[in-house]
Amino acid sequence: MQIEVNSDRIAADLDELAKFSDTEPPAVTRIVYSEADQRARAWLKEQCQTSGLAVREDALGNMFARWQGSDTGGGAVGTGSHIDAIPHSGRYDGTTGVIGGLEAIRALQHAGFKPRKSIELLTFISEEPTRFGIGCLGSRMLSGTLTHDNAGALKDRQDQSLDAVRNAAGLTGPLTTVKLPAGYYSSFVELHIEQGPILEKENISLGVVTSIAAPAALRVLIEGEGGHAGAVLMPQRRDAFLGAAEIALAVEAEVLATGAIDTVGTCGLVEVFPGLANSIPSRVRLELDVRDTDLARRDAVLEQIAHACDAVAAKRKLKIASHTLNADAPAVCGAEVVAALEQACEAEGIAYKRMVSRAYHDSLFMSRIAPTAMLFIPCKGGVSHRPDEYASPQDIATGARVLARTLAALAS
Amino acid sequence: MQIEVNSDRIAADLDELAKFSDTEPPAVTRIVYSEADQRARAWLKEQCQTSGLAVREDALGNMFARWQGSDTGGGAVGTGSHIDAIPHSGRYDGTTGVIGGLEAIRALQHAGFKPRKSIELLTFISEEPTRFGIGCLGSRMLSGTLTHDNAGALKDRQDQSLDAVRNAAGLTGPLTTVKLPAGYYSSFVELHIEQGPILEKENISLGVVTSIAAPAALRVLIEGEGGHAGAVLMPQRRDAFLGAAEIALAVEAEVLATGAIDTVGTCGLVEVFPGLANSIPSRVRLELDVRDTDLARRDAVLEQIAHACDAVAAKRKLKIASHTLNADAPAVCGAEVVAALEQACEAEGIAYKRMVSRAYHDSLFMSRIAPTAMLFIPCKGGVSHRPDEYASPQDIATGARVLARTLAALAS
Repeated sequence: MQIEVNSDRIAADLDELAKFSDTEPPAVTRIVYSEADQRARAWLKEQCQTSGLAVREDALGNMFARWQGSDTGGGAVGTGSHIDAIPHSGRYDGTTGVIGGLEAIRALQHAGFKPRKSIELLTFISEEPTRFGIGCLGSRMLSGTLTHDNAGALKDRQDQSLDAVRNAAGLTGPLTTVKLPAGYYSSFVELHIEQGPILEKENISLGVVTSIAAPAALRVLIEGEGGHAGAVLMPQRRDAFLGAAEIALAVEAEVLATGAIDTVGTCGLVEVFPGLANSIPSRVRLELDVRDTDLARRDAVLEQIAHACDAVAAKRKLKIASHTLNADAPAVCGAEVVAALEQACEAEGIAYKRMVSRAYHDSLFMSRIAPTAMLFIPCKGGVSHRPDEYASPQDIATGARVLARTLAALAS
Repeated sequence: MQIEVNSDRIAADLDELAKFSDTEPPAVTRIVYSEADQRARAWLKEQCQTSGLAVREDALGNMFARWQGSDTGGGAVGTGSHIDAIPHSGRYDGTTGVIGGLEAIRALQHAGFKPRKSIELLTFISEEPTRFGIGCLGSRMLSGTLTHDNAGALKDRQDQSLDAVRNAAGLTGPLTTVKLPAGYYSSFVELHIEQGPILEKENISLGVVTSIAAPAALRVLIEGEGGHAGAVLMPQRRDAFLGAAEIALAVEAEVLATGAIDTVGTCGLVEVFPGLANSIPSRVRLELDVRDTDLARRDAVLEQIAHACDAVAAKRKLKIASHTLNADAPAVCGAEVVAALEQACEAEGIAYKRMVSRAYHDSLFMSRIAPTAMLFIPCKGGVSHRPDEYASPQDIATGARVLARTLAALAS
């Protein structure tokens, strides 16, 4: 079977999708359930229907576009990714796997392929933690990793409940229906930009992901005492921001202390209250993220960070409370899906490299309910979550071609 | 002359004024030119007019309420303070000097006093740096310390110009008219809460301020490189927030290194961009404040902070640009006003203490155009710029009584 993908159509679709944004190009901002997100999903639904796929959405907003196979029973072969985008990010994170997945299906249709198992494009809702402070909301619920009770308790920064905002977006069904039945997918494969520099540096077209690093996110609330920046003398101060500064530097120090290149840690969210030049900070909210390919090593870093928080609290007379937002185990990819990806690369004559995903993906959770793997394509400078994120139409097309062949093999 | 002030009326006026706020009680938020600020000023204008004072506002919004003296020529005796309030602050900072000043005038009227020199209650506009990043905007312009050209260039955080927002608040005259003519005031005295713990601790009713500490404010912009918190490995990072953390700790270290209790430094404003748990901070805006009673010592600290910024920039490969928002010289209070205050305390039989003002006041700038001093009253726990800021009606009344006697002496 000869598989032809249309790189112009991929580029045009990504162009179109990038227009649904709350910031001016090239910066893309598409927060889950925002108007931009709703419009993007409506557009995507239309594209899937135009390609003859049967589309349904669950109560959370996960969108399933199915190409019915000849077998009516048995699990489907899934592919897909997400389209939500953090503020001021780029146009390729997630969208590449959705548009690339759709293009792979179109290419198989064009090639006259008849699937035995159904092939389904899954667009996950809320992969980014922007709104509810927790990543991969859609895949967590699909896989049963997050229960409907715990999901119902989530609130955004405006203190609106998940139910309130999804209802306002027209998603009114009960969350109890979101978890997929056992065996719903027989396998799952996600196409994604690497979000790292390795493929570009080594000039390799594709990465076959064999494991996904284990992320953990903490929220740290630091409470000191405010006051006038001129009038409160230094010995009387309990400055919450100086505590936060020490914690952030401790996170970096503990991460570096592992000596492992795979350990990373970041304090990305820092909110200082009241946030005025002439007021001593009384309160800081930090959110920090620690990842590793090795669970024990990552958890040891978390423990050291907890010790550092205690030490800072004691030294500066601050109240420091830390709360785990999520701490997931790493995923080992499904051997049969990895093998199908490698065989597809070989059949297409494309050089590839086995690699680790250091970023967080819905595949991490899909791996709990089906054999799952990922296919990476290079992105410029390894840059992601920034307006200058870039993947070439050729690389995306190469990814879609190998993905199509993989889906065909898995669905045969 | 027997002077009687009405502490119930002071308390009622402060109650009324606290209602003009953008936050729920006890937190007061009254940003300059906001609707709450405009309504508060309209209310105050009415109170002044009810007391028979002739009220005018200048093009910036400074409000002058004059009790005409028998001498038509010569400078007036000024008193007053500000009514704008930083977010989530209290009800006594500034307002005590405005309501206390009004009450002092009412008490003198009630006592049958006839001023030779005019007595004027001056309510300064925009003492707090909240909106335009620069404190004492009104008194800086009145004293000619800030020119109309430089004021015109000011913008708020929404990038609106000073002119645009004051015009929207109905203040449309040219800024060239704000600077006061030479000799406009023959003396100036400001009643204020101490914003420090000394009077309360030593159980002394009043503080006669003999000098005002020298504040300097810097804006530090730190630029690194953003990216995905999972995918960018530690050696490749240029995390702007870790740079900010080191700078904040360096500010504290340099301030402590002077060994002088009067040196204070604060990083109160910290904005981290993009501000998401899973994104490496690409940019941070810090605003920091360093104060001292000794100009040379303060400037030496600023120099050390600049060295620290350079060192952090070099070490972390960050771009760090620092910009002085203001760096004012300390004020020595006018000897004749200090003497008048001390004599008034003695005449009223009130214990007092000579002291330094560590906080920033409009009097700092008024001292450049007229002999100026301040009168402090105790505040609970030395707390200010917080919802639990408190001064007792009795202490405010005592301050107003001594202020009234001082104004009478200066205006005779």
